[in-house]
Amino acid sequence: MKVYVVGIGLIGGSMVLDIKGLYPEATVYGVDLNEDHVAEALKLGVIDQAAKLEEVVNADFVIVSVPVDVAMKVVPQVLDYAGEETIVFDVGSTKSPICEAVANHPKRRNFIAAHPIAGTEFSGPSAAITGLYQGKTNIICEVEKTAFKLQERALDLFRAIGMRIRYMDPKSHDKHIAYVSHLSHISSFMLGKTVIEKEKIEQDIFDMAGSGFESTVRLAKSSPAMWTPIFKQNKEQVVETLEEYISNLTQFKELLQDDNYDAIYDEMQSVNKIKVILNGLKK
Amino acid sequence: MKVYVVGIGLIGGSMVLDIKGLYPEATVYGVDLNEDHVAEALKLGVIDQAAKLEEVVNADFVIVSVPVDVAMKVVPQVLDYAGEETIVFDVGSTKSPICEAVANHPKRRNFIAAHPIAGTEFSGPSAAITGLYQGKTNIICEVEKTAFKLQERALDLFRAIGMRIRYMDPKSHDKHIAYVSHLSHISSFMLGKTVIEKEKIEQDIFDMAGSGFESTVRLAKSSPAMWTPIFKQNKEQVVETLEEYISNLTQFKELLQDDNYDAIYDEMQSVNKIKVILNGLKK
Repeated sequence: MKVYVVGIGLIGGSMVLDIKGLYPEATVYGVDLNEDHVAEALKLGVIDQAAKLEEVVNADFVIVSVPVDVAMKVVPQVLDYAGEETIVFDVGSTKSPICEAVANHPKRRNFIAAHPIAGTEFSGPSAAITGLYQGKTNIICEVEKTAFKLQERALDLFRAIGMRIRYMDPKSHDKHIAYVSHLSHISSFMLGKTVIEKEKIEQDIFDMAGSGFESTVRLAKSSPAMWTPIFKQNKEQVVETLEEYISNLTQFKELLQDDNYDAIYDEMQSVNKIKVILNGLKK
Repeated sequence: MKVYVVGIGLIGGSMVLDIKGLYPEATVYGVDLNEDHVAEALKLGVIDQAAKLEEVVNADFVIVSVPVDVAMKVVPQVLDYAGEETIVFDVGSTKSPICEAVANHPKRRNFIAAHPIAGTEFSGPSAAITGLYQGKTNIICEVEKTAFKLQERALDLFRAIGMRIRYMDPKSHDKHIAYVSHLSHISSFMLGKTVIEKEKIEQDIFDMAGSGFESTVRLAKSSPAMWTPIFKQNKEQVVETLEEYISNLTQFKELLQDDNYDAIYDEMQSVNKIKVILNGLKK
């Protein structure tokens, strides 16, 4: 099995580590514009060989794991070079733009639009870990546009690394993911900003930060290079979620200003059911 | 050593578990209006005996770990009953109101105002765990108002369970903690609310939630009974942090609406330094 990973970081790197564990005969080729990343990935054993895009004609799988704006150019290029049996998939957090970008490509049937919902706040080849995808969800969009034989092989691979498959149209994906992922990142970044700004004038504030703060600002460690194009591509949906979030925060603030503590209690109690929802996720 | 814990939940329960581990000769007495909690704490071995407030005259330590509004009544009552050598401390997340409530108590010198910054999103006796305070910060307010000999014994106990001590005046405590703790809780509750509201009309949205969402909404599992009085007591500071947070979110939304992606990138990159700050916390 020949697997190419284009963009060797957390997402692609973790995926090929699992593939290497499951298929010892697999050879993993790494393509990355950043030569340091290629060298690091070779040294860490994440990839077996450095490679170029042009070589993918014999690939079984090409994982395009680059920022979503770069994927808009790279996926069509990879498809240009792809062989008849080559499966090309992306892993981006937005799905409408990439699906539109390849809609009329002559090798559209070699492409499968995927969003494995997994990650950490770290990036680069050293962030690659085994088992990242175990029990996680992989959203597949427009599956009917991928050749049936290739679909089957791709889904077998996703299931082999432990993923549950969910099918969704690209627009629904982008709308829903704005709530459960994109908004979380902005809420976390802006929480970090608010506290850092305060710290400039109030020393030692972080000495008082506990595990709760750490949990809520964890995503503020995420890569701006990865996230800026995601927000750009999903602008409309993200703006909408932000408006709802700001409106909820403003309402909470007003309840506080009005000393309406019964309503504040009720608000929190009603959100407490997130416990049950999150436990459901772990099933 | 006789230790009384008034309010047997996560905070007080975890503290007496550590005390029992360190001082096998200690007897832990539990006081709680909730009889189920007393029975549960006895069964779990969190406390050795059920007790009443009136019995604290021979106590070495009385830990008052009740919601901050309840503490306003209970701490003065406990002080009324306290013996000459009894150390009474609270553990609340607001410090000005409790310090004011005991300011003129004849046994003010038996009280030490404490805020051990530790916790989880769980509550009740079954949430009590050993080692919760290891490496965590304990903020002590108005230490000079506690009898010197009693200060010393209290600080020895806090250090024995692994805590670092920081001294702060109550007003500064309440101002800073609004940023690094109270705001995080509201941001998390309102994030949960925003997504739950959306889910009512968009099924299966939670199927797409990953570990990032889980991390940012973890605090939305917290107890409304504990948090409502905290927000009430620290209303002014919390409203101020909320206004700054809402303003930062609104500004981010406007950058997005203006397609100013360079500024969005810069915002996120500048908040990324939270990595270094959080790593510093772990030292």
